[in-house]
Amino acid sequence: MTQMEYARKGIITPQIRHVAEAELRTPEFIAERVAAGTVVVPANINHKNLIPCGIGRELRTKINANLGNSTLSSCPGAEKSKLAIALHYGADTVMDLSTGGGITSIRQAMLEQSPAPLGTVPVYEIVARYGNSDFAKDKIISVIREQAEQGVDYMTIHAGLLRQYVPLALKRKLGIVSRGGALLAAWMQENKKENPFYEAFDEILEICRKYDVTLSLGDGLRPGCLADASDEAQFAELDTLGELVFRCREAGVQAMVEGPGHVPLDQIRENMERERKVCGDAPFYILGPVVIDCAPGYDHFVAGMGGMMGAYYGAAMLCYVTPKEHLGLPNADDVRRGVVAFKIAAHAADVALHKPGCRERDDAISDARALFDWNKQFELALDPEWARELRTQALEESSAPNQHGSEYCTMCGPDFCSVRLSARLKKSGGQ
Amino acid sequence: MTQMEYARKGIITPQIRHVAEAELRTPEFIAERVAAGTVVVPANINHKNLIPCGIGRELRTKINANLGNSTLSSCPGAEKSKLAIALHYGADTVMDLSTGGGITSIRQAMLEQSPAPLGTVPVYEIVARYGNSDFAKDKIISVIREQAEQGVDYMTIHAGLLRQYVPLALKRKLGIVSRGGALLAAWMQENKKENPFYEAFDEILEICRKYDVTLSLGDGLRPGCLADASDEAQFAELDTLGELVFRCREAGVQAMVEGPGHVPLDQIRENMERERKVCGDAPFYILGPVVIDCAPGYDHFVAGMGGMMGAYYGAAMLCYVTPKEHLGLPNADDVRRGVVAFKIAAHAADVALHKPGCRERDDAISDARALFDWNKQFELALDPEWARELRTQALEESSAPNQHGSEYCTMCGPDFCSVRLSARLKKSGGQ
Repeated sequence: MTQMEYARKGIITPQIRHVAEAELRTPEFIAERVAAGTVVVPANINHKNLIPCGIGRELRTKINANLGNSTLSSCPGAEKSKLAIALHYGADTVMDLSTGGGITSIRQAMLEQSPAPLGTVPVYEIVARYGNSDFAKDKIISVIREQAEQGVDYMTIHAGLLRQYVPLALKRKLGIVSRGGALLAAWMQENKKENPFYEAFDEILEICRKYDVTLSLGDGLRPGCLADASDEAQFAELDTLGELVFRCREAGVQAMVEGPGHVPLDQIRENMERERKVCGDAPFYILGPVVIDCAPGYDHFVAGMGGMMGAYYGAAMLCYVTPKEHLGLPNADDVRRGVVAFKIAAHAADVALHKPGCRERDDAISDARALFDWNKQFELALDPEWARELRTQALEESSAPNQHGSEYCTMCGPDFCSVRLSARLKKSGGQ
Repeated sequence: MTQMEYARKGIITPQIRHVAEAELRTPEFIAERVAAGTVVVPANINHKNLIPCGIGRELRTKINANLGNSTLSSCPGAEKSKLAIALHYGADTVMDLSTGGGITSIRQAMLEQSPAPLGTVPVYEIVARYGNSDFAKDKIISVIREQAEQGVDYMTIHAGLLRQYVPLALKRKLGIVSRGGALLAAWMQENKKENPFYEAFDEILEICRKYDVTLSLGDGLRPGCLADASDEAQFAELDTLGELVFRCREAGVQAMVEGPGHVPLDQIRENMERERKVCGDAPFYILGPVVIDCAPGYDHFVAGMGGMMGAYYGAAMLCYVTPKEHLGLPNADDVRRGVVAFKIAAHAADVALHKPGCRERDDAISDARALFDWNKQFELALDPEWARELRTQALEESSAPNQHGSEYCTMCGPDFCSVRLSARLKKSGGQ
């Protein structure tokens, strides 16, 4: 039985109990939403070392880190350290998007190393194994089954990109920017056939139900630039994703929906609310959105800004974007910057939404700031090592004594330090 | 006469004409708003090489870079290169916040080097010169007059922090975090006297009118952490700032209002709208706001997120924050990161508000992306050097040929490149 089926029978599983504790909610609160499909707990029965995590609009906003090699870059060792970094800085889930060699063994290593839920995009392994011209049903199903047996917690399946939508996408400035989407569109046009994942959806559901794989309904038609945002192609696919959500729920399979992409700030709210309505409030898992197109090198930041607003308006999970987006495959440092940027975005939204247990960290670091307790500040920082490094650098570039105990920083020095002046004023009772 | 006085007489100055061209508006559009005080054009009659810039809610969102040494850090040469970097990456105005030695000569060098409006906080020079216990009116006035004569385009004056507000601020978690605010509060409490800038406000207006110095009405009581946001102290001072705006307008002196600070996302809109109402829609010049307290080392990002939302809800200018905020004095690289982060924030808001001439850059870079025109992409990037550096790094870390002409990046490689697949599909007419 899947977590959804247990929840529907009123059984509180250890996974649900764990999520409830992490979210400072009752198990019943979580179970009710898992039963309804507005919260998912990706937990493949074969992912042995999993620490389960709940994903849903009302829970803490989650962030995912995409890892994996490409045909041109990276090796198993590099992916191992990227995974360690992603987990260290707080990625809630990770996806292996490898498209290069050794996909099965990279995934196996990741599953063993990662207590966080692991997601994949099976079409990559299908193409890596059989090429991009053969999407026969038995091949699709065998790859999905292998991955499910191995313990993959959630899978992106681009089943909503129907053949009739392809012409809508080709009218765009940037066409189809989803890798899976573009591969499928090319195949459908060449073979004049319907989307093979859509055709095989019932068989896919069967596998997902058996291993409790959560389906992440992929948005193959997400906009790749501001000019393409919120267009006919995007929303046509969203309608189909909504239908698929209900087919998943009928089959007892957990499902979330993937979302854009590049979207200007003024369209984010509308996008979030539309998904909620069309997809029965299924958890919305968004990539960014990237709010401007002209800042390559800083897209972790650009997408983090959009992600913050997406979460504020109802997205449940944010897929990180790294500084390398639009430029190349991220390395370990890019992974760190991407994860931290998205932890910031998620936390900013959660604080603004007054989710339980979120603001405490900010209040604690502010207390430490008032007391000049630098070590406590570093400890409470989302990237402690980086905060410490920058303070050390500033001290080294100054004439201040090089130690962390001092009651000021090099921005103002002791004479102009407002926190110091404030503390003295408070001590004197404002007299 | 000041720009405001010219505008009120219906005279279109060269400065107004220049701003109109830069904003793709008519000179009358700008002049009307300068006359009303909802747009300011800081343009000291003695800043000879100035290229004027308009600041107001309806114009492109401007960003300011704070520069200047502290008693512990930096030297004139370092400040010179920081200024060059700030201007290179697009700072619309710069402030010299020096509190260490040689303030007058650093300012002189900056004025000569900077075609962007230069702002200062005169209380720093007063304290550096006379210590923090002597705010006699003649000393205040002489420093302000010297700076005005020298050519400073706008000055932050903390005249709104009345003595009766100090106890309200001392109730807070972090008290008073504005340097100027803390210095004045300490002096007022010790001497049991009213704010000396408030007392000398008429004389200050006289100087500002003579040289056309724009007043930037400082928020000495801005909140320094989420817990202190939108409190009684902050809004009491804002009410006084509103009164001062009207005194400025009566005197023909241009004025803008400074704003928070640390503010959670859900309070930003309210803060922007309140200023507009209380201060007669005077341009709001905000510092951040910082939307979470727990990400030292990334506060350029955290404040950029808040700044984007502030601009979206009506702020006119964003004061940048650098990665060193809360940790130390920014160095040249911090200045670059801060400026770029805030250019992103400002542009994201401007695009969402459909301001004239803003989205074009995004559409052009998206066209270049579709064509794999890497050089054009770099050229249109907000930080071209960094985008190029990251792509080069990715290529070097891969087995791809190390050149920019290739029709893919190392993220996907040629076989999985969606842009490449899309282009082929488009070419085949989707058949």
